[in-house]
Amino acid sequence: MNSKRVAQETAKVLQDYLTYQAVRTILDQLSETNPTQALWLRQFSQQHSLQNSEAYLEALMAERKDLVMRIMTVREDLAERVLDFLPEMVRSGMEESNLYYRCQILERLTQTPPEDQENQESDDSNATE
Amino acid sequence: MNSKRVAQETAKVLQDYLTYQAVRTILDQLSETNPTQALWLRQFSQQHSLQNSEAYLEALMAERKDLVMRIMTVREDLAERVLDFLPEMVRSGMEESNLYYRCQILERLTQTPPEDQENQESDDSNATE
Repeated sequence: MNSKRVAQETAKVLQDYLTYQAVRTILDQLSETNPTQALWLRQFSQQHSLQNSEAYLEALMAERKDLVMRIMTVREDLAERVLDFLPEMVRSGMEESNLYYRCQILERLTQTPPEDQENQESDDSNATE
Repeated sequence: MNSKRVAQETAKVLQDYLTYQAVRTILDQLSETNPTQALWLRQFSQQHSLQNSEAYLEALMAERKDLVMRIMTVREDLAERVLDFLPEMVRSGMEESNLYYRCQILERLTQTPPEDQENQESDDSNATE
């Protein structure tokens, strides 16, 4: 298992996702303060995927440098607020989810299937007859 | 800005993404040890999106509990190996990216546009005439 590759790819996904959240935050802000600009940014974001935040910012640079600056500031701020909490949150979310599936698997393994139970019961009744 | 909501949504994305990486790792392993099973899991993963890892595992539970167990073990292991490095990696990736765009913006701001330069030069030459 190549942990280094996984770490690098995961960090990239995380950076893209925080950039998406920054754009979403700015869209919320603009829709209150400057609806025309909000509409413009919404349309731009439909044409340029935020799955690749670097390509998105590169394209936005050609059109609105002020918005690029704003996105950078907001994503930096978001990163500062959430990054340090993520490892613990993901760990506990994963533990909870794994526990749920492990319990389900254990339940099904220890449960005698209904059909077998019936057979067993009829066997027992035969035995006592 | 609702940092709590952003943190929760980001943790969910991260958990989904590590589950995807776990499936990918298992596919690599199986394609060497058990190609038939690798093919089956590949087809299953095409039919069930890993964008929502919980729905994926829920569906897999009905078909192959052993693979659910294996995915849980691998994603836990991956989480243990990479989670603690992510905050620093994302922070430095974002800093690097932000620096790149800030430099570009600064360069363009301080650069006199070529047209203006030409005008200036012709103005200068007029002045010396």
